[in-house]
Amino acid sequence: MSDLEKHQRMANAIRFLAIDAVEQAKSGHPGLPMGAADIATVLFTEFLKFDPTAPSWADRDRFVLSAGHGSMLLYSLLYLLGYEDFPLEELKNFRQLGAKTAGHPEFGHGAGIETTTGPLGQGLGNAVGMAIAERLQEERFGKDLVNHYTYVLAGDGCLMEGISQEALSLAGHLKLNKLIVIWDDNGISIDGAVSITDSTDQVARFAASGWNTLNVDGHDPDGIAAAIRQAQASDKPTLIAAKTTIGFGAPTKAGTAKVHGAPLGAEEIAGTRETLNWPHEPFEVPSDILDAWRIAGLRSAHAHKDWQKRFNDADTETRAEFERRNRGDLPAGFEQAVLDYKKKLAEEQPTMATRKASEAVLGVINGVIPETIGGSADLTGSNNTKTAQTNPVTPDDFSGRYIHYGIREHGMAAAMNGMALHGGLIPYSGGFLIFSDYCRPSIRLAALMNQRVIHVMTHDSIGLGEDGPTHQPVEHFAALRAIPNLTFFRPADITETLECWQLSLENKDGPSVLALTRQNLPSQRKTFEEKNLSANGAYVLIDSEDDAAVTIFASGSEVEIAVDAHKELMGSGIAARVVSVPSFELFEAQSADYKEAVIGSSPVKVAVEAGIRMGWDRFIGNDGLFIGMTGFGASAPYKELYEHFGITKDAVVAAAKENLNA
Amino acid sequence: MSDLEKHQRMANAIRFLAIDAVEQAKSGHPGLPMGAADIATVLFTEFLKFDPTAPSWADRDRFVLSAGHGSMLLYSLLYLLGYEDFPLEELKNFRQLGAKTAGHPEFGHGAGIETTTGPLGQGLGNAVGMAIAERLQEERFGKDLVNHYTYVLAGDGCLMEGISQEALSLAGHLKLNKLIVIWDDNGISIDGAVSITDSTDQVARFAASGWNTLNVDGHDPDGIAAAIRQAQASDKPTLIAAKTTIGFGAPTKAGTAKVHGAPLGAEEIAGTRETLNWPHEPFEVPSDILDAWRIAGLRSAHAHKDWQKRFNDADTETRAEFERRNRGDLPAGFEQAVLDYKKKLAEEQPTMATRKASEAVLGVINGVIPETIGGSADLTGSNNTKTAQTNPVTPDDFSGRYIHYGIREHGMAAAMNGMALHGGLIPYSGGFLIFSDYCRPSIRLAALMNQRVIHVMTHDSIGLGEDGPTHQPVEHFAALRAIPNLTFFRPADITETLECWQLSLENKDGPSVLALTRQNLPSQRKTFEEKNLSANGAYVLIDSEDDAAVTIFASGSEVEIAVDAHKELMGSGIAARVVSVPSFELFEAQSADYKEAVIGSSPVKVAVEAGIRMGWDRFIGNDGLFIGMTGFGASAPYKELYEHFGITKDAVVAAAKENLNA
Repeated sequence: MSDLEKHQRMANAIRFLAIDAVEQAKSGHPGLPMGAADIATVLFTEFLKFDPTAPSWADRDRFVLSAGHGSMLLYSLLYLLGYEDFPLEELKNFRQLGAKTAGHPEFGHGAGIETTTGPLGQGLGNAVGMAIAERLQEERFGKDLVNHYTYVLAGDGCLMEGISQEALSLAGHLKLNKLIVIWDDNGISIDGAVSITDSTDQVARFAASGWNTLNVDGHDPDGIAAAIRQAQASDKPTLIAAKTTIGFGAPTKAGTAKVHGAPLGAEEIAGTRETLNWPHEPFEVPSDILDAWRIAGLRSAHAHKDWQKRFNDADTETRAEFERRNRGDLPAGFEQAVLDYKKKLAEEQPTMATRKASEAVLGVINGVIPETIGGSADLTGSNNTKTAQTNPVTPDDFSGRYIHYGIREHGMAAAMNGMALHGGLIPYSGGFLIFSDYCRPSIRLAALMNQRVIHVMTHDSIGLGEDGPTHQPVEHFAALRAIPNLTFFRPADITETLECWQLSLENKDGPSVLALTRQNLPSQRKTFEEKNLSANGAYVLIDSEDDAAVTIFASGSEVEIAVDAHKELMGSGIAARVVSVPSFELFEAQSADYKEAVIGSSPVKVAVEAGIRMGWDRFIGNDGLFIGMTGFGASAPYKELYEHFGITKDAVVAAAKENLNA
Repeated sequence: MSDLEKHQRMANAIRFLAIDAVEQAKSGHPGLPMGAADIATVLFTEFLKFDPTAPSWADRDRFVLSAGHGSMLLYSLLYLLGYEDFPLEELKNFRQLGAKTAGHPEFGHGAGIETTTGPLGQGLGNAVGMAIAERLQEERFGKDLVNHYTYVLAGDGCLMEGISQEALSLAGHLKLNKLIVIWDDNGISIDGAVSITDSTDQVARFAASGWNTLNVDGHDPDGIAAAIRQAQASDKPTLIAAKTTIGFGAPTKAGTAKVHGAPLGAEEIAGTRETLNWPHEPFEVPSDILDAWRIAGLRSAHAHKDWQKRFNDADTETRAEFERRNRGDLPAGFEQAVLDYKKKLAEEQPTMATRKASEAVLGVINGVIPETIGGSADLTGSNNTKTAQTNPVTPDDFSGRYIHYGIREHGMAAAMNGMALHGGLIPYSGGFLIFSDYCRPSIRLAALMNQRVIHVMTHDSIGLGEDGPTHQPVEHFAALRAIPNLTFFRPADITETLECWQLSLENKDGPSVLALTRQNLPSQRKTFEEKNLSANGAYVLIDSEDDAAVTIFASGSEVEIAVDAHKELMGSGIAARVVSVPSFELFEAQSADYKEAVIGSSPVKVAVEAGIRMGWDRFIGNDGLFIGMTGFGASAPYKELYEHFGITKDAVVAAAKENLNA
C-alpha cells in the first residue's frame, strides 16, 4: 500500500464514520467531514502534538473545529486516535440524549473537545484567545514548558461572520505566528454556492491584516503537509486556503449544498462506498487502518514524555505555580488581601463610581493574582480596567498583562473564552454594558462551557447621562440575568464591588458580568463584615426593629435611592427596611428559608432599579411597586434623567405611602 | 476671498460650532467634527443632493454619520444649511433634556437625521441597506424617480467592528456603486493610536471584497472633490480613505486621543481660535459664511423641482403607488386577503410547523404586498422565507424581492434597518432564533428608531432537536421581550402565525420578531374568527363553563401541551381553561379589565413554555407553577428532549393536581 493509498484509506475512515453516524442519527452534517478528511488526516497524523492518554496535557497543540456542524470529523478523529471518551459506541449514539457526541462539539462532554462550537466564527475567536494564552504562558514559564500551536479548521460561514474580522485583525496585529487557520474552502453554504452572496477574496483579506497566506489543494496530502510546515515557520499567523469538495466521494451530491446538513441516504451511501472503494460495513474500520490511526495517536507520546521530564526538572516553585494556575486555583494570599482591603474600606467609607471602585479593587487583585489578564474594548479610561500591575501586551512583548482589544467587543469576548479554555489565565476585560449586546453570543458560550471569564461593564444605566439612549442600558440587566449559568452582578458601592469581584474570581464554573456605574456612589456598608454578604445575592442592608410596613429592594446605583427613601419613611414614622440585591442568580441559589426571610412580609414591597421591571416580580410579587424604566433613555445630564424618568427617593416614598394608604 | 479660504472658513464654522456646543454641554466629542469638517464641507456644498425645505424628499441623497459620536458635525451642518429643526438654539442645547441635539444622532428627533448612530458600525450597515433600497426602488420606479447616492462618514471604530465586514462584503458582492464610504482615517481611538491594537490595511481589505478604493488628504478640498467624482463614476461601491487630523486646529490636542471625547477647555479653545484665525464669539458664525452655507443649502432646490416635475408627469397609478409605499401604508387588498386565508385555514385545520405556516402565509402576503423584500442569513430552506413571488436579487438584477444575506445576521439586520429608513420597502428576513443574539444591537436600534422590520426566527426552542444547546434558544424569549418597543411573537399554530404576520405588517412604528417552530403543530383555532385574537397579546383559547380551578398559560409550541393537559384535567373532573399568549407586549397594551379577565382567578395557575420562567410571573404570580427550562438544552430528537426536560402534558397535569391538593 503506497503512502498515498494509506493516507486515502485513513481519510476514508473518517468519511465513513461520519456518513454512518449521520445516517444512523437521521440527522447531522456529513459534507464537511467528507470534504475535510484529507486535511484532518494530515494534520492529526503528521503535525498535531497531543496524547490521547493524557488529553489535558497543558502543552498539547490545540485543535479548534470552528465549523462545529462538522462535529463528526472531530468525533471520528478522537475515536480513531484512541481517546478513551470516544469509543465506537459513542459514535453510534451521535446526537442522542446523554451521548458525548452532541450535534455540535460540546466542551466538557469528553476530553479531546477543546471548545464548544457551532455558532459560526466563535471557534476562530476562541483560537485567537488560545494563541494569545500560549504566548503569554510561554513568556511566563519558558519554551520548555509552553510551546504549542493552535490549529483551526474554519468554514466559509466562519469567515463570513463579522466576528471573524475582529478575530483575524487582532491576531494579525499581535503577530500570533503559532496560530494556523485552515479554511475549508468548499465554496458551498446552505443556500447554495457561496458565490450567490459573497465575492470576497479571503486570502487578500487576511493578508490585509498581516497574515501569512497559502493556497493549497485540500485533497493533496503532500501539499497540505508542505503548507503546514511553511505555516509553522512563519513569523505571522497563517491562513491556509484549502480548496476542497464538500461531500468528497458522494457520487451525485458532492460539491453541492445537498450534502451539507442532511444524511446522504442509502443509495448515495452505497455509491460513495463504491466511488471511494470502501466495501466495509457501517462503522467498520479495517484493522490495518485502525492500527495506523492508533499508531498515529501515539506519535507524540515521546514529546509528552520529554515535556514531563523538563517539567520535573523545573524548580519546585515553578512547578507548583504552573500547576496551580492550570488548575484554576487562586493564590493562597487572595482571601486575606480581600479582607484587609475590606477593613480599610469600612474605615474610609469612600464615595466613588463603582467603575473607579473596581479599579481600586483590581489594584488589590492584580497585586496578588499574577494570572489575571486585563483588557478593554478601547475604553480603558472609562472602564478603569488597567492597574499599575498590568502593562500592555504588544506584538513583540507578551510579558504584559493588559490587552488593548480594540473596538472589537465580540472578538474580545470570544478570545477571552479561548484564554480561559486554554488554562493558566483568568481573563477579565472591559466594555460599556450596552455593548454586552455586541458580544452576547460569546458570553452565552462561556456560560454553556462553564468558563471563568469576567466582564467589567461600565456605564450601566441612564446614569451615564449625555451619551443618550444608544448608550444607556435599559433591558440589559434582565437580558443578562436571563442567561443560564451567567452571574450578573450590580454592586451598590465599593465594598459590594470588592465582594462581587471576589465571587467572580472564586467561581471557576461560569462567567460573570460586573455592571458598574459612571456616576459616584457613597459607601453603603457602614461596618466591617468578614462574611461576603453579596454571596447571598440579596441581603438586608437596613433592617427594621419593628415589623416593617415597607421593604425597598434595589441594586447598584439605586441602593442609594432606596436608603434615602428609607430614611424619609422612617422620619414619617413608617417602619421600613432595605434589601440590596447585587445578584439575582446567587439569591436563587440560597435556601428557601433565607430567601423567605430576605423578602420578608412587609405589606408594601417596592423595587427600584434603573432598568425594566422584568424579573423583579420574584421579589415584590406582581402587585408590587416598581420604580424604574419602561422604555428607552434620553440624552441629558444624569441627575436630570433620574428626575425625568421618576427614579428618585421622592417617587419611592410617594409610591410606598400611597400603597400603604390604599 | 479665495475659494480655498472660503472653504476653510466654512469648514471652521462647523469646527467652532462643535467646539462651542461641546464646551457648553461640558460633554461630547469635538475631535471628529474638527477633523472631518473639510470632508463634510466639500460633500455638502458640492455633492450632496438634498432640500432643507423638504428634508423627506424621497430622492434625496442619504448621508449617514456612522461615527455617531461626532454628532455635532451633523447638527452644525443642519443648522448651517438651514434645516428648520436645527436652529442655533438647538445647538446651544446640545445634550440637554428634550433637545433635538442628543449626544448621538437620534432618528426622529429632527428632520435631516437619517438614522440613529453611535453603536459603532451600525451606520455603515444601515447605509448598505439604504443603497440596496435605492437600487430596488430604481428598478421598480425608474431612474426618473429614484436616483440618489448614499454617503457614509465612518471612523476607525466603525471599521474595527465585525459588522463592518458583513456590511462591506455584502455591498461589494451586490456592486452597490452608489454607496460611497468616506473613512475618517485619523489613526486615533479612545485608548490612543489605532496602531496599538490594529495593523489592518483597510484599503486592501475593502478592495478584497470588490470595492473601488481611493486615498485622499482629508484636509484638501480639491482632492476630496476629485475623489467623490471618481467614486460617483465607479461601477463598484467606493471607499475613500481620507487621512485627517482628529481635532484639527487644536494647538496641543490635535492628533491625540485627548480631543476625541471631552471638551477642549477654555485655554485650548482660545488657542484653536488663534490657530484657525476664528476671532468670533462662541456660536457666532460671520454672516458672509452663514450666507455661503445657506446658499449651499439651496444648491439642489432645482434638482428637487425637476424631480417634482418628473413625478407630476408620471402616470396616476405610479404616483399613487410610489406615495403609498413611501408612506408605509399597506395596499387596499391586504386585509381581505388575510381574512380569506383565515377562513380557508379554519376549514382545513392544517397541521404544520409554524415556519412552514409562515411560508404559506408569506405566499399570501407577498401576493398582495409588492413592497416586501424577503431574505435569509443562509437558511432559506430552514426559515421558509422564500415564496414563489420572490426571485433573488443579484448584482446585475434588482428586480427580485429576495436577498441572500449570507452568514451575516448582524449585517442583515442593520441593512434591514437601512431599507426601512430609506422608505418604500418592508424588509423581512430569516434566521435561527438563537442567532437573534448575533444581531441584537441592530434589532434594538430598529426598536429605538420605530422602524418596521420583521425578523422571522425559526427553530425557536429545544424543539429543534439534535443540533443541541448551541442552537436551542432558552433565554431568548425573555431577552427579546425585554427590548422596549419590540414586539415578540410566538404563535401557536398557522392561524396565529397569520395573525402575528398581520400585526407585524400593520405596526409601522416598531420591529417584530416571529419565533417559529421547526416541529409540526396542530391547528388550535377551531373556528373562523374575523377578529385578530393575537392582537390582544393573550386570549382565552379554551374557556371553562364552571369556575376554572386551573388556568394554563402557554405560547407557541407549548399551547399544544396546554390543550392536551386541559383535556386530561377536564377528564379528571377538574375545570380548567387555556390561555394562548402569542405576545407579552400586546397583552400589556390592553385595558386593565381585559387583562384581569384573561388572567382570571383560578386558584391554580400554570404556565408552560420551553424557555426560562422570567416574565411569566406577570401571568401566574410568583407562587404560580412554571413548566419550562432552567438551564441549557441538549442534543437529541426533540420529543425525547421534551420528556427529558419535563415539558409535557403529564408534568402540567401533575403540577396542577398537586397544587390543587396542597
